[in-house]
Amino acid sequence: MWDERIRNARLRERILSADEAARHIRDGMTIGISGFTRAGDAKVVPAALVERVRRTGEPMRINLWTGASVAEEVDRTLVEAGLVARRMPFQSDRRMRDAINRGDVMYVDQHLSLTVEMIREGQLGPLDVAILEAIAIAEDGSIIPSTSVGNSPTYAMMADKVIVELNTHQPLELEGMHDIYVPGPRPHREPIPLVEVSDRIGTPGIPIHPDKIVGIVITDRDDHFAPLAPPDEETARIAGHLVDFLEHEVRMGRLTNELRPLQSGVGAVSNAVLHGLLGTPFHHLQMYSEVLQDAAFDLLDEGRLRFASGCAVTLSPGRAQDVLGRLGSYRDRLILRPQEISNHPGIIRRLGVIAMNTALEADIYGNVNSTHVLGTHMMNGIGGSGDFARNAYLSIFVTKSTAKDGRISSIVPMVSHVDHTEHDVQVLITEQGLADLRGLAPRERARLIIEHCAHPDYRDALFEYLETALRFGGHTPHDLEKALSWHVRLRDTGSMRP
Amino acid sequence: MWDERIRNARLRERILSADEAARHIRDGMTIGISGFTRAGDAKVVPAALVERVRRTGEPMRINLWTGASVAEEVDRTLVEAGLVARRMPFQSDRRMRDAINRGDVMYVDQHLSLTVEMIREGQLGPLDVAILEAIAIAEDGSIIPSTSVGNSPTYAMMADKVIVELNTHQPLELEGMHDIYVPGPRPHREPIPLVEVSDRIGTPGIPIHPDKIVGIVITDRDDHFAPLAPPDEETARIAGHLVDFLEHEVRMGRLTNELRPLQSGVGAVSNAVLHGLLGTPFHHLQMYSEVLQDAAFDLLDEGRLRFASGCAVTLSPGRAQDVLGRLGSYRDRLILRPQEISNHPGIIRRLGVIAMNTALEADIYGNVNSTHVLGTHMMNGIGGSGDFARNAYLSIFVTKSTAKDGRISSIVPMVSHVDHTEHDVQVLITEQGLADLRGLAPRERARLIIEHCAHPDYRDALFEYLETALRFGGHTPHDLEKALSWHVRLRDTGSMRP
Repeated sequence: MWDERIRNARLRERILSADEAARHIRDGMTIGISGFTRAGDAKVVPAALVERVRRTGEPMRINLWTGASVAEEVDRTLVEAGLVARRMPFQSDRRMRDAINRGDVMYVDQHLSLTVEMIREGQLGPLDVAILEAIAIAEDGSIIPSTSVGNSPTYAMMADKVIVELNTHQPLELEGMHDIYVPGPRPHREPIPLVEVSDRIGTPGIPIHPDKIVGIVITDRDDHFAPLAPPDEETARIAGHLVDFLEHEVRMGRLTNELRPLQSGVGAVSNAVLHGLLGTPFHHLQMYSEVLQDAAFDLLDEGRLRFASGCAVTLSPGRAQDVLGRLGSYRDRLILRPQEISNHPGIIRRLGVIAMNTALEADIYGNVNSTHVLGTHMMNGIGGSGDFARNAYLSIFVTKSTAKDGRISSIVPMVSHVDHTEHDVQVLITEQGLADLRGLAPRERARLIIEHCAHPDYRDALFEYLETALRFGGHTPHDLEKALSWHVRLRDTGSMRP
Repeated sequence: MWDERIRNARLRERILSADEAARHIRDGMTIGISGFTRAGDAKVVPAALVERVRRTGEPMRINLWTGASVAEEVDRTLVEAGLVARRMPFQSDRRMRDAINRGDVMYVDQHLSLTVEMIREGQLGPLDVAILEAIAIAEDGSIIPSTSVGNSPTYAMMADKVIVELNTHQPLELEGMHDIYVPGPRPHREPIPLVEVSDRIGTPGIPIHPDKIVGIVITDRDDHFAPLAPPDEETARIAGHLVDFLEHEVRMGRLTNELRPLQSGVGAVSNAVLHGLLGTPFHHLQMYSEVLQDAAFDLLDEGRLRFASGCAVTLSPGRAQDVLGRLGSYRDRLILRPQEISNHPGIIRRLGVIAMNTALEADIYGNVNSTHVLGTHMMNGIGGSGDFARNAYLSIFVTKSTAKDGRISSIVPMVSHVDHTEHDVQVLITEQGLADLRGLAPRERARLIIEHCAHPDYRDALFEYLETALRFGGHTPHDLEKALSWHVRLRDTGSMRP
């Protein structure tokens, strides 16, 4: 019955119910599951575990490792049932976030390229069970992933036991689009041979000894993608500034109209900015990115994007059916890689990627906070932004200049938490304008950022802060008593407005 | 007369006085000079320029690019004469620092691997004149550097004119110890083929067309090395904690006694910590570092270090004569590389380096400030610490737990400036103890850092801060009103003590 999707005859005997498979999970274990930005996550075994624990009342606290964020059905149900002791390396679920911010879940927020290096070298403890979604299992047992690769190759390698969620609703056309490559052990590692965005350097499936697969659970659940806010007037203006800047770089002879391989962060703003490249003079573009969202497929459809490399395909519900229904048409223009390859510092440096990521807030010197509301409360996590921003040819951060109906300025005297230092932020864009910070000292950066990026409602107050700060002197002038006062006011009054 | 050191006959005709050579430098120019941590810097032409400007009173403001820090004779004399408009990418001179902190010099503080990528791709403007110290010029015109390589290969490539300072006091034995490799142009760059610390992948000299060399100035000035504070009781205790930790890692099977390639930051504390590896069970060690200081040679002499790769040899004055006098004995165990290779993110990741860098201060969550006193005043610069910390197998930061006779705690509630985020700090060591932060959430990191690393005099106050901060909740709890209060107190009273 499952010959087409389970091509190893012996493995066809290991089909289990989700509940049977979940019995491999015991209290205190570390569980690694597939999934990156809600794409290709394990779905039914985590749910079955929650079911069982609710039924039996047995004690159960697990460490949950993923690729990146997984569907709320997974994070939410696990955390609501109180099953998650630790979480790594990224999440974006509201209830998981609340538990993290209450201190109920110990969250290890990591550069997404780094997790598997540390796991393979035993720095984060053993992995008991991996649960990996697949579209098929090859004759040799190797696992063909679905809409994301994430950390699955290393989870398959390191786990004592592997459970496969064979998802019959994920299109078989995905087969051949993955490129599984795990760098060799250090310290005698050969260079990763990827030179072009489109290079295939690995295998179509995740190699694994069939004996390690203790169960295969058949499922038919679609990825639970989240809606994506459409481009709005402000994101269109951000995109406009970006396009103007890139055209200027072409005129200066630093870029051609083919630009450089593009990385685009995750979420509505990043998607909208990328969307802004439609209908521009740029052509034969390539992406070397983490997540391929709607705009990547818009650009592929327009023929403007000639190749896209990522580690996950995450679409809005409206776009998913269309794209997944004709995946074959993207076959020669799409590769999905493990996140340590899509986000690899050395490869990003080698390719000279143009990185475009989203800031929660930036300060007048160009330091960026992309994770912590009020410096304390985790939103999602640093994700791959550090992998890309530090190593890019050009590191661009975008944000709307205000949030919450203007009550919050995204440009502040001092960010309340630093994810990206001024060294890693070369261009800052808001709907107000663009600041090209390359080769500038902090004092110069400050005037440019306030003038070009801050919202007019906050510009005077920022200049006033800068003038006071300058009285204290220094390479990066600050008035330490007032540096975080805008955040304190926001915390106490709900607004940064004086 | 100069046949041995200038092997290209035509070039022997281009010997100039320092004053004649300096005439190539005009107001508004960008000048790139050799030199890294006071090793192998251009010496006499900058001095001659200052002389001339003092004599003529002509207007002269230049942009000064180097490898890293240069001798105070260069930075100090240039800045005292008011000649420096901009400075990049690193400095450590007191007067240069003062000028930067006054806002008189615009300082661009950069990751040291990054500068030449941006220069080669035209992102930082043109380079007018390069002044490079050499021990010899080969028959084909290629320049054999002296005690550092730094950014010189790219400066030679990009400058309109090149002036060579041929230093007859630098030992000719250095020839053959350099390995000059410049990565190919992006976006079609081949992998850098370095796999082992000892691999030679380039040429012994800096390739350059002889016509580009407009003058050769003969000099005999020694590198002006700075004294290095000897190991003291506190650095010995830091080293002791490091050795205990590494031995523990060996027992856990994560490392062998050969460890991994070691990187050690610049300065007395880093040198003293590295010194602590003498007489330990670790053997056949290798260094893949930026600067090779006294301790590297102590370890080479002891036979404990089998190979050292760096981009500069910087010794204390006492040790310099000894080491430079018998350089030949290190020939097969030493390579000097361009700083973009010694500090290359992809190579550091590939080799799995153990990075050991110095913090100015760290906060209870493990964020590190390594550059800004009171968050405002530049000490030296970020240097290569970001290149190494972000990409290392293990990123270790060390600092004494207090400074200024105990008036400053190096462990603070919130660092006043962030150079290295908690993501890039895996182990923190003070003379008080060691915090292994791998796989821990911020709330866990805080207790460990306060308990193990803070000085007992500040421990209660830090716990008190943490308790208050926890009332505000969050993944990284802070009381924003008090987060920087220790720094404000220090600024206002000269002490962090309550």
